[in-house]
Amino acid sequence: MPDLAYVNGEFMPIEKAMVPIEDRGYQFGDGVYEFIASYEGRLFMLEEHLDRLERSMRGLAFDPISRSEIKAAIFELAKCSGYPRAGIYIQISRGTAPRNHAISPGILPQVIMTIRPVKEIPAELREKGASAITVQDTRWDRCDIKTIQLLANSLAKQKALDSGCDDAIFVSAQGVVREGTSSNLFIVSDGRLTTHPLTNNILPGITRAAILRICEKANLDVEESFFDTETLYRADEVFLTGTVTEVLPVVRIDGKSIGDGIVGPTTRRIYDLLRKQALAGESA
Amino acid sequence: MPDLAYVNGEFMPIEKAMVPIEDRGYQFGDGVYEFIASYEGRLFMLEEHLDRLERSMRGLAFDPISRSEIKAAIFELAKCSGYPRAGIYIQISRGTAPRNHAISPGILPQVIMTIRPVKEIPAELREKGASAITVQDTRWDRCDIKTIQLLANSLAKQKALDSGCDDAIFVSAQGVVREGTSSNLFIVSDGRLTTHPLTNNILPGITRAAILRICEKANLDVEESFFDTETLYRADEVFLTGTVTEVLPVVRIDGKSIGDGIVGPTTRRIYDLLRKQALAGESA
Repeated sequence: MPDLAYVNGEFMPIEKAMVPIEDRGYQFGDGVYEFIASYEGRLFMLEEHLDRLERSMRGLAFDPISRSEIKAAIFELAKCSGYPRAGIYIQISRGTAPRNHAISPGILPQVIMTIRPVKEIPAELREKGASAITVQDTRWDRCDIKTIQLLANSLAKQKALDSGCDDAIFVSAQGVVREGTSSNLFIVSDGRLTTHPLTNNILPGITRAAILRICEKANLDVEESFFDTETLYRADEVFLTGTVTEVLPVVRIDGKSIGDGIVGPTTRRIYDLLRKQALAGESA
Repeated sequence: MPDLAYVNGEFMPIEKAMVPIEDRGYQFGDGVYEFIASYEGRLFMLEEHLDRLERSMRGLAFDPISRSEIKAAIFELAKCSGYPRAGIYIQISRGTAPRNHAISPGILPQVIMTIRPVKEIPAELREKGASAITVQDTRWDRCDIKTIQLLANSLAKQKALDSGCDDAIFVSAQGVVREGTSSNLFIVSDGRLTTHPLTNNILPGITRAAILRICEKANLDVEESFFDTETLYRADEVFLTGTVTEVLPVVRIDGKSIGDGIVGPTTRRIYDLLRKQALAGESA
């Protein structure tokens, strides 16, 4: 059961997968990506991820790519690796051309993929809850497009780790709490869930959307609205959401305990409902 | 006299130069770059470019790379190509590791370079002056580091071209005029030059610095201070500066004529002084 890569219609070991140095993804950050996970061999919310991938490409005016071709490559990777719990990374750049800020007409998108076992969040971290720091959001203004311009995300994540914490939470210059470095964020206060609305400043998370639907079905009170760091610190529960993150409780932020400093009941419940849905292979 | 690339100590045709798909430059925008031009076979302000390259790397906490090794590769490229007017592109990424926002310890920087003849600004454009549009600056907050996160720059440049103009000028949400998509910007008003101060929002241009020194020597009144779009429109002269741009007059912005709509005397004078310095092979 090997880790594999896909480049230009071919499958190969990841170490052998190469792209030209003048791929615009490498010289301009001109690319988009998705990460899809499988549960017991079934890809969770595949169509939702592919929908977003297409939206990202349209957002940057990439030439379109056949969805069925992308799906065929994904299924082939999943079959060849045989991983029951696989993480598939898909990246599409605008393509390769002699370096120029202007976009060369007729440039063809470049698709690469990798498959590996999902690197699970340790069970112990899920049980005791994660710690986070807040950092000022220095990213560009189109975080709603899932581009590979992830340097600020990476630096914030590393800063969190260097401070002995698990992740960082982006906060706007005006103090609005946005999201994690590779996850969306929810708070629970007085029984009501709140998450940042879909604007150009956060990623429209697939797991975020799934949780909004889960809350609706479970008659949980949830709203998409702005809130500040004081509200974050005072929340009863805080959790991060994402494809690998799933639902990860955060019990300590900037050195302050959230609620009682232990994983709360609403976070647990939503995690269980999401896992149940994922294991049942349901999409919505 | 061929175009050439350099990767990992080897020289090859640019089309053959490849990097691993898990180079962090390709998946996180985690890389920095420089572009150096030669005049009559002499690299202009090479040390200043290498100083900035090292500052960029330190700014992102890359492992250091031997400057003499980089210089040796640059000189070898220049020798092999033989171009008297060469453009050397140098990009350094943090290195390659299995995809992870967190930075793998011990990761080794990856250097790539290309050499081609400089794609000169057409003489006609220099003579009649360029046109530009203003666009809101949507870039991240560390434009002082010369990273490869250039998607906003590329999209703004393309937007300018699509509107029949030559370039775009980034303006902050508060209306402060910053710089071009790959150049700094100066205005001339009542005989005084003004350019945006060095903050985290603009690139500390090598040509910008050279022009500040040129102005000082020529007893031209110049200041680094903030100004808004109204001041830009009302300027007597506007010009962009950069390694390839050199000093490019802008005579029309957002459809409005700047001054008399023709290239002004101060712009001409500074262009001549910069060219003279470059052709003399002087660094400062």
